[in-house]
Order: sequence, then C-alpha cells, then structure tokens
Amino acid sequence: MNFASDNTAGAHPRVLEAIAAVNDGVARSYGADRWSEELNEALSIWFDRAVQVFPVATGGAANALALSQLTPPWGAVFCHRESHINVDECGAPEFYSGGAKLVALDGPAGKLASAPLRQALLNHPRGEVHRMQPGAVSITQATECGTIYTPHEVGALAQVAAEAGIPLHMDGARLSNALVTLGCKPADITWKAGVAALSLGFTKNGAIASEGVVFFDAELAEHFAFRRKRGGHLFSKMRFFAAQMLAMLEDDLWRDLAGAANAGARQLAQIFAEAGCTLAFDVEANEVFAHLPRAVADGLRQDGAYFYPWGAESGEAPLYRFVCSFATREAEINRFRDRLHFHRSRN
Amino acid sequence: MNFASDNTAGAHPRVLEAIAAVNDGVARSYGADRWSEELNEALSIWFDRAVQVFPVATGGAANALALSQLTPPWGAVFCHRESHINVDECGAPEFYSGGAKLVALDGPAGKLASAPLRQALLNHPRGEVHRMQPGAVSITQATECGTIYTPHEVGALAQVAAEAGIPLHMDGARLSNALVTLGCKPADITWKAGVAALSLGFTKNGAIASEGVVFFDAELAEHFAFRRKRGGHLFSKMRFFAAQMLAMLEDDLWRDLAGAANAGARQLAQIFAEAGCTLAFDVEANEVFAHLPRAVADGLRQDGAYFYPWGAESGEAPLYRFVCSFATREAEINRFRDRLHFHRSRN
Amino acid sequence: MNFASDNTAGAHPRVLEAIAAVNDGVARSYGADRWSEELNEALSIWFDRAVQVFPVATGGAANALALSQLTPPWGAVFCHRESHINVDECGAPEFYSGGAKLVALDGPAGKLASAPLRQALLNHPRGEVHRMQPGAVSITQATECGTIYTPHEVGALAQVAAEAGIPLHMDGARLSNALVTLGCKPADITWKAGVAALSLGFTKNGAIASEGVVFFDAELAEHFAFRRKRGGHLFSKMRFFAAQMLAMLEDDLWRDLAGAANAGARQLAQIFAEAGCTLAFDVEANEVFAHLPRAVADGLRQDGAYFYPWGAESGEAPLYRFVCSFATREAEINRFRDRLHFHRSRN
Amino acid sequence: MNFASDNTAGAHPRVLEAIAAVNDGVARSYGADRWSEELNEALSIWFDRAVQVFPVATGGAANALALSQLTPPWGAVFCHRESHINVDECGAPEFYSGGAKLVALDGPAGKLASAPLRQALLNHPRGEVHRMQPGAVSITQATECGTIYTPHEVGALAQVAAEAGIPLHMDGARLSNALVTLGCKPADITWKAGVAALSLGFTKNGAIASEGVVFFDAELAEHFAFRRKRGGHLFSKMRFFAAQMLAMLEDDLWRDLAGAANAGARQLAQIFAEAGCTLAFDVEANEVFAHLPRAVADGLRQDGAYFYPWGAESGEAPLYRFVCSFATREAEINRFRDRLHFHRSRN
Repeated sequence: MNFASDNTAGAHPRVLEAIAAVNDGVARSYGADRWSEELNEALSIWFDRAVQVFPVATGGAANALALSQLTPPWGAVFCHRESHINVDECGAPEFYSGGAKLVALDGPAGKLASAPLRQALLNHPRGEVHRMQPGAVSITQATECGTIYTPHEVGALAQVAAEAGIPLHMDGARLSNALVTLGCKPADITWKAGVAALSLGFTKNGAIASEGVVFFDAELAEHFAFRRKRGGHLFSKMRFFAAQMLAMLEDDLWRDLAGAANAGARQLAQIFAEAGCTLAFDVEANEVFAHLPRAVADGLRQDGAYFYPWGAESGEAPLYRFVCSFATREAEINRFRDRLHFHRSRN
Repeated sequence: MNFASDNTAGAHPRVLEAIAAVNDGVARSYGADRWSEELNEALSIWFDRAVQVFPVATGGAANALALSQLTPPWGAVFCHRESHINVDECGAPEFYSGGAKLVALDGPAGKLASAPLRQALLNHPRGEVHRMQPGAVSITQATECGTIYTPHEVGALAQVAAEAGIPLHMDGARLSNALVTLGCKPADITWKAGVAALSLGFTKNGAIASEGVVFFDAELAEHFAFRRKRGGHLFSKMRFFAAQMLAMLEDDLWRDLAGAANAGARQLAQIFAEAGCTLAFDVEANEVFAHLPRAVADGLRQDGAYFYPWGAESGEAPLYRFVCSFATREAEINRFRDRLHFHRSRN
Repeated sequence: MNFASDNTAGAHPRVLEAIAAVNDGVARSYGADRWSEELNEALSIWFDRAVQVFPVATGGAANALALSQLTPPWGAVFCHRESHINVDECGAPEFYSGGAKLVALDGPAGKLASAPLRQALLNHPRGEVHRMQPGAVSITQATECGTIYTPHEVGALAQVAAEAGIPLHMDGARLSNALVTLGCKPADITWKAGVAALSLGFTKNGAIASEGVVFFDAELAEHFAFRRKRGGHLFSKMRFFAAQMLAMLEDDLWRDLAGAANAGARQLAQIFAEAGCTLAFDVEANEVFAHLPRAVADGLRQDGAYFYPWGAESGEAPLYRFVCSFATREAEINRFRDRLHFHRSRN
Repeated sequence: MNFASDNTAGAHPRVLEAIAAVNDGVARSYGADRWSEELNEALSIWFDRAVQVFPVATGGAANALALSQLTPPWGAVFCHRESHINVDECGAPEFYSGGAKLVALDGPAGKLASAPLRQALLNHPRGEVHRMQPGAVSITQATECGTIYTPHEVGALAQVAAEAGIPLHMDGARLSNALVTLGCKPADITWKAGVAALSLGFTKNGAIASEGVVFFDAELAEHFAFRRKRGGHLFSKMRFFAAQMLAMLEDDLWRDLAGAANAGARQLAQIFAEAGCTLAFDVEANEVFAHLPRAVADGLRQDGAYFYPWGAESGEAPLYRFVCSFATREAEINRFRDRLHFHRSRN
C-alpha cells in the first residue's frame, strides 16, 4: 500500500526493453546519436510543431534550467505558493537563474489565477530599477494538488503573461496525467494555449529518468545547450535517455500508464467518500488529498500504508496526500479500502 | 573502427541486468532505497574506509559539484591546462562554485607537477584581499593524455596542497583504467595518497550513466546534499543509479572492462609503433595519442575510422587521439592495423 | 516641500569638513589607513563591544553582502514582506548570496513578529533536502513603515532565530532615527538584543555615502573581506569613507540629525491629525504615512510638494509616505501645513 | 617618498570644492539629479559621441559589471595575464558574470597582442558545447606595466574581437595618463578604435571615488541599470559622484593631474637611468618598473620610501614598481634621487 509518491515505482518493462534495444554498437555521444534525433522528431509530431527537446537528469533540473533561460537574473518568476519550484527544489531555480526571485502567489486548489497574477505584476513595474523585473510565469500541470488547468485557463494566464511581456513556463512533471483527463492533444494544453517552454516529465509516468526541457520556439532555445552543459546535464551516452522517452511515446505508452495511475486515484477518491472522509481538492489526476483523523492515519500506517501528511499534521483531521502510479496494484487499493473502513469504524 | 571516445560504447550487459533486477516493486525515492545504502557500503569496502557517495548525472556534474564543495567562490582551483574541468565542461566548475577561478598550469603528459603548483600558489597569498585565495587542487586520473599518476606522485601533490591548506580533488572519470595499470587498491591512489574528494566515473568504464562524488571524510561532505539537489542531480528513482555502480563493483566488473580497454590501447600503441608513428605520451590507460601524417589520418577516416585530432590539425603530422573502451572489438583493431599499414605505405 | 525621501538631502557640513580634513598627504589604501582604524575603534566604543566594520557603497550592498555572509546559497532569509531587501533592491540579496530565497512574511506596521516567523520556519525543516534551509532572519530598524522595534521585540525575534540556529540581521538604514526615539544605547538594540550583523547606514542620516556592515562577533566576519572585494566595494581611498562615519559619530552628530528628522515627522503627524487625515502607522521615526484624498494629494503636488504614494494610488484616500530628513526646514513644514489645510478645506 | 600607488594620494581640492558646491538643497536621488544629467552630457562631449555613463563605487566594480554585461556566463574573457581583472580583483568578474572564465594571455610589457589572441580564440570554437564561448576581450589602458596602447594597436585587437563576434572592453583606471601621453582625443583611443565599453576611472587621477562604466552604444547598455543596482552600486546621493567626475572634466583638470603624474614618472625613470638601474618597461604613463639590488631596495625603504615589489622579491635585482600621482611632490622625487644614489654607491 504505497501511496507515498509516484516516484517510488520502478519503470515499465517496455522502458527497460527500449534501453536494451539501443545498447548494441557504438553511437555518437552527447546527443548526436540517431535516437536523440528520432526523439526530437517524435516529440515534434506529438506536439504538432517543430520543437526542441533537451533531456536532463531530473524534473528539478528541467524546471531550473528552463526558468534560467526565460528570466534574467533580475527577474521575478510568478508561481503558486505550493508549486514544486517554490517549495521542493531547494532553490534550484534561484541557483540556475543567478538569483532570480520566485514570487509566491495564492490560488485555490494549487492553481494560479489571473487576478492575483495581475496584482503581483503591479509590484514589478517595468524599468523601475529598484524592483525585480517581470521575468516569467510558471504553472504546474497537473498541479501539486492533483488538479488540472484547462486549455482555457492556461490561455488566460498566458494572456496576462504576454501583456507583461514575459513567457509562460509549464512544469509538466505529471503532464501525462493531465492529458489523459483532459482528453486533449499535447499541443492544446501547451503551445496552443501559450506555453513557451515545458518541463516534460516521464519519470513519474513510468520511466527511470526521463525528463527534458521542450521549447516551442527555436529562438527561445538559443544558447540553452550551454546552460545545460554547465549544469552537468548533458549525458554522454544520451541514447539511453532518448530511448526512454521514445518508449513512453511509442503506442502511447504514456497514456496507458497515466490512465492507470489516474484510475487508481479515482478509486481511492471513491473509497474515501464511502468512508466519509473529506477530500481537499477535486481528483483530476493521480493524487488524492484526504482529511483523516490522526488515529485513522496512524492505523493505516501501522497496517503498512505509505503516504505523507500535506502540511502540518495537526488538528482533528490533518490533510494527507495519496499518490497512485502506473504500478499501483488493485490489491493494494482493495486492502487500503478494507483497512480504511476498519479504522474509520473505530474513529 | 570507433576510437572517438570511450563514451560511444553502450553499456555492459551486466549493467542492464542489474537495472532490471532492481525494477520490481516500490522503493523509497531520492536515495533512501536499500540499493543506495548497499552502494555506500560497497564503496566503503572498495575504498577500505567509510565513504559517502553522491550519484549524479554526469562526470561534469561530479567535478563541478565536488569543486564547489571544496573551494569558496573566491578560491583558485589549480589544475592542468589540458584538464577536462578547464577545457571541456563549458565552465561548469565556475558556475557551480559561484565564480571560482581555474588556474591552468602546464606539465608534461597531462600531469600536474609539484614545482609549478608551488609556484602558482605564490601568486595567491593567504589573506591578500585582492587575490583569489587558494581553493583546491584538482588532478585527473587517468589524465586527459592517457597517463597515470603513481600513488607517490599523488601524494606529493597532496602534500603541496596540504601545505597551502587546501584539499586535493581527483577527477576519476577513468579511475578504473588507472587502477588496472597501477595494480593497486583504490585506497592507495585516493585517500591514502591524500585525495579528499573523488569524482568517480563508471560511465566510460561500461555503465549507462554512473557517476558520483565520493568524500573520504564525512565532515567534508557536510551540506553537500543541498548542493546536489540545487543542481538538479538528486535522482528520484535512485535505485537505478545505485544499481549501475553496484554492478560495476560486483565481481570486479570494472576491472575486467578497464583491463580490456587498456589492452586495446596497448595493441593500438604497438600498431602505431610498427607503422613508425610517434606517440606523444606513454600509453598507460586506454588512450593513445599518435602523430599521423594528415593524409594517413584522412585515409583512415575514409575507411570508416573515428577519432579526433588533439589540438589544431596542422603541421606535417598532427596529433590524434584514439580511445578504446570495453567494447572495442578485436576485429576493429585488426582492421585498423591493416588500414594503417596500407596508408602508411603510401604516405 | 520635499518629503520624497531622506536621501534627497545633501550632506551635513561637518561631514564635508571631515572629508576635507583627511585629504592632506598620503594614506595607505584599501582601509589600511589610520582613519579606518579609528573608525573601528570608535564604533567599538559606540557599541560597547569590539566590532568589525566594513564600509561599502550603499545600503543595498551592506544588506546583500551581510546576508550572503550569514546564509548559505540554499538558505531561506525570513523578512517582512515590505522590507527593503524584499522589495527595493532588485534582488541584490539573491545575487550576492548565490541564489538564497527571501521568505516574505506579513506583520503589522512593517514589523516582523515571532508567531509568523515560527510558522514559516516549519516549512523549512533542517536536513530536509528538498527544502531551502533556515538561513537568517532580517529586520529593518526603523522599519519601512516608520515604526520601531523595542529591544524586547528584537530579542524575541532573535530568540526564535536562535532556536532555529540562524543569525539575526538588522537593516539599520535608519538606525539613528530608531535610537533617538528609543533613547537606548546602540548596544541595547543590536548585539545585546541578539543581532549578529548590522547594516549600519549614515547616508540618509546626513552623510554622502556612509554605509557599512558591522559584525558583533569576529568569527562571523571570517572571509567577509573577500566577499566585499568581489562585490567591488573595497574603496581604494577608504579614508574618505571612514571620515564620514567618524564625523557622524563625533559629538553624536548622528543623534542631532536624526532627532531633527524625527521631530519633523512628528510635526507632520500633528499637521495631518489637525487636518483630519488618518495615519496608517504610528510615527516613531522620520516617516509619516497618511491617507489623503487623491485631490488633496494632487493639490499638494501642484503646490510643489514631493512625496510618494505607498502602494497603489487608488481608492478614496490612498496612502502616501512623507519623509523628513535632517535638512527638512521649518519653512517647508509650515508651508505644507498651510497648503494641506487649504486643500482639505476644499476636499 | 610614497610611490606605493596612485591611490595613496588624497583628492584634488577642486574635487572637494565640487562636492561642496552641489551640497545645497534637495536633489532627486539615484541619479535623477541634474548633475548626473550634466555628467552624461559632459562625457558625451568629451567622447564626441552620445554615451551612457553609470557611476559605481570602484574600478573593480566597473570592470566586473562591464564584463558581466558583455559576456554570457559561459563566455571566455580574453585578457593579459598581468591584468588587474585577472590578478587583483579577487574574482569580481567571475562573480558578477555568473562564472565566466578569464583566459590569461601573455604579451610583452603588459600588452595583449593580436596573434596570441587569435590563437586563444581557436580553443573556443563557436557552438562547441563543451567549450566556453568567446565572450569579450579586455585590455587595460594604460596597462598594469605602465605602457600604452596606440589607437592602431587597440584597433587591431578590436578587429580580432570583431571577427570573433565579441566586444572589446577597456579598463581605463589610468585612461587619463594614457591620453596625456598619446595626446589624442578620448574618442580616438576608445570607440573610434573599436572599444565597446569602458571602465572610466578618475579616482587614481585625483578624485575620491569616481569610477563609472561608459557604453558607447545604447543597445549595449540595455538592462545594465539592473546589474548595477543588484551589485549595490546605485548611489542614492548620486550628485556627489557626478560632481566628482564633472570636476575632473572641467577645464581639463584630469589632464593637468595626469600630466603631473606622468612627469613624475619620467623624472623617476631618468633617476633610475642615471643610477644605472634597468627599467623593465618603457615609461609611458605614471608607473616605473625598475630592477634594484635587494640591498638598495631595503635601504630606500629604511629611508621611508614606499613601493612594492612586482612579482617575487628574489634574485639579484628584483623588480619594483614605483607609481607617481598628481600629488607626488618635487621634494619627494629629489629626496628619492639622493637616497637612490647613496645606496647605489654602496651596492
């Protein structure tokens, strides 16, 4: 019963097979191999647009490098207070950008909204030398609260960003989960909605380490290769990383795996509902946030369930996060239901 | 006939098997898994000392992160002019360190020597506020010229470093190759010789992406985890990276693979000697640097041989680098001998 | 009628005299002159403790350099949302610290309070590698709202900081104004209350450019000289900067000048009260924040009064900031009173 | 007999007078005052071109900020091995640029030459991701060896820089001294010769702290104001710094003072010649580099002469640097001649 994170899962067998399949013989290093080329083509098809992808080691690297490309060191990056870049990357964006500032904004269900963004931009007037300048807007899709931006919502934020003359970045560590729910094409929720650069993550989705920065406009990618290299993120045996992404794209493996993860979360949501537990946010991807009495949470943990509190574990019914992955098994969910009902009957 | 680099090879099958073997089930992320723990133990045994290892994505990251830990931003890092950190990492050490300076020193056969190091240190007197302060010394083992430092030589440099109050870093991107030639224990050429931090590389040796920073003294590693995280080098599914290193260590796979690579280089060296070509440096690891008439080099390339010029491709007999890996095949070498003799007979 | 800022004033004649007085003859450069030595002694007497002072060009430099010394690059600096370091230095602290994060906290009247600070610290647990680590707490004295921390209040914040194992920094751009109001000794509101490092500013107080970082503990100042040098803040002809600070200290010039500025603000406060204008904050230093009908503000500006809106100039009675300096003249204040009454009588 | 540096002198009385003259009344802060405007106009006249000047605290700040504007963080800055930026700024350029690399080149008499520059550029091919990219060329005028580039020489270097697509920076800490010797207009040796950005220094020339970055092309200055602000180099009471530069320009005070300093150096040169001491470099500005027997140097120091060894104080006749300033007195030079002759007669 491991709902701690979707990165506690291993990789899907087809990812391992893809790695093995590219292993034979020599290949040019540092991304000049044919699989890296294929990857760029495959993603360009996926996105219905000629894109440039730069694989890197982690989602944190993708976010930090992407932002350092979009904002000057004196730029303000507007993001949600709960966003991964603001909370969980130990300042990687600040480091890579040479000291940009993340301006944390509040918004319901982990989602940035246009009004507070407009408001925040007022504090950063262009040309005012004392103030950090508008640098970029960054949103997470699916959000850290397991919710999803619609193309319309992304477009509205992109519009505000464009009015301020700054680009919109999307942290797509769980983009696949969002795409499955939205049922739209990757283009619809990214560049067509105004996203300039995307951190594309397939690791949580089912790979080993498959993250990359995608630029939808070649000009925006200028010199980015140097940033990646300086960050130590230019793999020498790149074929093994291209192969992972290719495997995720092939026959829409990403969709099957994200679909399974989302389905698991929906099942959990229903289980919590049956057990009379309040959910904090709509379950739109593969994460569920449920209020549980502390005793129930403790009981579940003693039964071997893994999950994290979301915020301080205090009050009558603290909030807990439950994440499903492609590898979450039916049996885990069933057992969780049983144990939850048991503990609820006593608390 | 690919002698372009040892990173054009794929990975050894046992590395792939190891990755597959850790794939089942869930594991704690970010290095809290049991394989990461095993790795730390295995390396501690390998080094005859309790060490701390921090896997990262590339050798460039390992070097840059290690140096940023050892030197303050106002520090001077003394290294060989031809060293990878000085020449081939696009300034990653400068970036990670917050603007330290690499002081490039000359020395025969890619090796730093004590005298020029002492001399250079005179330009950086302690406490002189205008001068960058002594920060660290960094050497590469095996060197970028395919030569090797003896434990005695490392010890002598460590001694100079210690007198200046600064630590000695070793870039061990090809440490395995050096160990095979030296026939010594890993401890002898590292901490026992005065090395404080090591960039340990198994990628060229036969893995997919298996690099790490090893500290021989827990105090020196303090806070290093934050640096790695900020660099975006803390893998979430760490088990797959621990597994690669464990596979390289198991039954001394590293030794077999480095031994094969070194043997290939020795064969090449003999082939060049037979063909009357001058070697620039002793062949002590898996790299050969040979002077070839331009026409010979061109002929070989037309025959499908891959290799790089070392420096400007000018003069009568420019210098070329030939690298063997664990995957270099007997047939490649034989064919290379034939083609070399053919072209030499005409030029 | 210039109430735009206390930095629109010139310098006090005694500061100019002091500069002229040190001009004769040669002096060792870069702070090895005798006036710099005297300054260190004079400040040690002023603070009843052996301190180390490092003059720099601006208050922004003092703050950024001080914080870069106190926090690691992966540190969180807790400060008030309205603080100068957060709002008005274009990210200088982020730049100098190598990418630390300023965590903006709310608090009444520009003052940081213990409870929100404790709360914020919970989000930065020690050793949690994904989170920026507790770095420093920074407060401004007098605050950006013209209010003042008592020694007891500073002590309470220092206590929270100490429990978190981090130092307390004070931005003393208007320390003199605070000291005059408090009537306490410099020691009482700084190191005795738990302040580890102080940005000491005499520029607004009546000098030309007289700012410095003061450390109350020699250990905390270790290597700081290199930071200052790298920032380009080590003046070659340091005597002229030491002389300014010495002039401000001599015969308590700082006190007379700050006293005059504070008195001006108190007069303004009374004038606003008589005119029925609401003040946003208690007037405890040399700044007054008054709500004025927009028409009144416009009228005053047409009469030649200078002052800035504080926040958006919207609503019925936007907030405006009025600052007095040592050079504010009685006639200016009297004329301001007349004009305010005139415009109030019509709006 | 102080020949330690030209920054051991005080300021010329007219600089102090200028400071006093701008002290009355209020002025807009941060450079929006009328003297700052005048300064920009005065310098535009001085340079026969519309320029933009940004006063900063020190020459080190001017150099580091200028270079950070010209080179990306992954850029190589080509400079002379003995240049101030490479040797004496504790890495300020590396800090401000976010980790650029200074590539130290050798050249006779402190002067960079075209051939080694071209050669060095070969090691930094454009687009090669492993190599730091061509960033900027920086020269010092007058050089650290007291020699001077002719307009033709500057133009030749600018040409090489232009071919590489990078700008030429000039460190003009002693530009006045060079101008006096060259007898040319400021334009001739700067933008007309291909200089894109200049660190203009009047501090050594006779001011208190009067340094600035001058851009000859408005486009190149874009966003520079933010860099200066983040470095803490935007003075609030800017008028006092504008006034210093204006004073130096008025009635060509800079020329008189530099002329006096240069004349002092020429006298010293003759004195050394008479005493049979070898000079290391031609004396073209206000610095003299003489080989003296150690006993002679010691004797002079015991007589109260101040000067620094240049390099290691070893061998039979180490090299020493003697600097004259506008304030060097005839009596000092005469006494120095006497003492030199005395000690030479014995050694």
